[in-house]
Amino acid sequence: MHQAAHAPHITADAFNRAITAYPWFGSWMGVKAVEITPRGATVHLDVRPEFLRHGGTVSGPIVMAVADVAMYAAIMGAVPHGERAVTSDMTMHFMRRPQGDKLTGEARILRKGKRSIVCAVDVFVEGQGESVCHVVGTYALPSA
Amino acid sequence: MHQAAHAPHITADAFNRAITAYPWFGSWMGVKAVEITPRGATVHLDVRPEFLRHGGTVSGPIVMAVADVAMYAAIMGAVPHGERAVTSDMTMHFMRRPQGDKLTGEARILRKGKRSIVCAVDVFVEGQGESVCHVVGTYALPSA
Amino acid sequence: MHQAAHAPHITADAFNRAITAYPWFGSWMGVKAVEITPRGATVHLDVRPEFLRHGGTVSGPIVMAVADVAMYAAIMGAVPHGERAVTSDMTMHFMRRPQGDKLTGEARILRKGKRSIVCAVDVFVEGQGESVCHVVGTYALPSA
Amino acid sequence: MHQAAHAPHITADAFNRAITAYPWFGSWMGVKAVEITPRGATVHLDVRPEFLRHGGTVSGPIVMAVADVAMYAAIMGAVPHGERAVTSDMTMHFMRRPQGDKLTGEARILRKGKRSIVCAVDVFVEGQGESVCHVVGTYALPSA
Repeated sequence: MHQAAHAPHITADAFNRAITAYPWFGSWMGVKAVEITPRGATVHLDVRPEFLRHGGTVSGPIVMAVADVAMYAAIMGAVPHGERAVTSDMTMHFMRRPQGDKLTGEARILRKGKRSIVCAVDVFVEGQGESVCHVVGTYALPSA
Repeated sequence: MHQAAHAPHITADAFNRAITAYPWFGSWMGVKAVEITPRGATVHLDVRPEFLRHGGTVSGPIVMAVADVAMYAAIMGAVPHGERAVTSDMTMHFMRRPQGDKLTGEARILRKGKRSIVCAVDVFVEGQGESVCHVVGTYALPSA
Repeated sequence: MHQAAHAPHITADAFNRAITAYPWFGSWMGVKAVEITPRGATVHLDVRPEFLRHGGTVSGPIVMAVADVAMYAAIMGAVPHGERAVTSDMTMHFMRRPQGDKLTGEARILRKGKRSIVCAVDVFVEGQGESVCHVVGTYALPSA
Repeated sequence: MHQAAHAPHITADAFNRAITAYPWFGSWMGVKAVEITPRGATVHLDVRPEFLRHGGTVSGPIVMAVADVAMYAAIMGAVPHGERAVTSDMTMHFMRRPQGDKLTGEARILRKGKRSIVCAVDVFVEGQGESVCHVVGTYALPSA
């Protein structure tokens, strides 16, 4: 009996335990995966005052980190040893001021190759219907 | 007598005082401007253990934050009220593993328009000759 | 009686007539809009031998042009005087070899602002289910 | 006696002969390499009326093609069998209206890896001092 072909390689719970090893994401920032599938992932962040910049909007690097963790969760769901993936490129378009208490990052795998994965993310703010940030990223996968 | 046309709109010292108002960059992370001209800026970051990810490389969002602060410093040097600039897009190419104790971000203004500024940054690690990360960003400027 | 708020600012037919004024897109390349809505557009291209590069894949700039025309059609549908929009930035991720006889570009507006529009496009090849190229672009809108 | 480590893998003349096999770039558009080194390349394009769009500026895809050929020339200079390189991602920032009779693309290699190459290009118009377009691209290299 083999594992179902379409089960993700990690669960949201296991992912959340794993990222506590990264003080920056896990402990300090507190972003958490809420769903991981073989084709994507959803993460949440509760916004704290120290994440804000001038005018009360969420700081750009915090939004980027939410997108980055969402892609990282998606990759860990999509391939074995996804924790060894390394970002090659990332492009962000910030479209609306991220003002609100909760951020959600929704990542979907656009391409899963042997040597790299391409992923797109939209970041939403609770209560706003439209994406505040669209991100596309490529990650190199370890060769062995 | 008027101010020289080519003096930056802020000095590195004034910039470093201003960013202490941003707990994330200023106090927690500790990135600092070392030079600001009307055409660019250089910032430094001392790497701490909590900035690292798997394998001892500096976490992607930390490198992004260095690039972001370098661009922010360059914009505050290039235009009045640069603190009100808002990131529209940012593209990063990570080219080498950022392993080392000190990061330097060197930003240069590619285009200064009335409504937006385009900036390129290279991030270097002390002791490595070549850029570890090339970033291009566009910032919207406040209309008044 | 006024025009419905949600009618596009141009029809696919009118767009196709308009682009014949651009010899490169309209006459030489032959890309055509098949649908334009206030939120997006779909365009088609019949691939000819001179669009191919080494190995029989469609040349990168041809794929880019399909994406560019799709965004241009979407913008002309979304705002009045969209023909005056100017590309500020464009990011492309090429994910699969575009091999096939027909390309389709599907553009959707991510953000419609007063001064700029952000748009995402996926380019498909007839017979392949997944996007061969994901593009994000920003266009500056004329101020008057 | 071995070939000098720092000779490019192709000369500008050989490159220009090779691209005549690509009707689109070579014959139709007429872009030509003027210098290729192991670290970069410079290409020229004489602008013709059919390359222009509304307002007399050079069409975006033409500027992209100049950048693409410049990167392609740089890659063919930097590695053997560079003609088999495939674009993974490309980001363009258009900064000034490209109005003029001659375009120059100057590409420099940012990173030469075993599996991919990262390259930056600036496109200049004769008579304008500053870059009209800054491009960053990644190319996958054939595995054998």
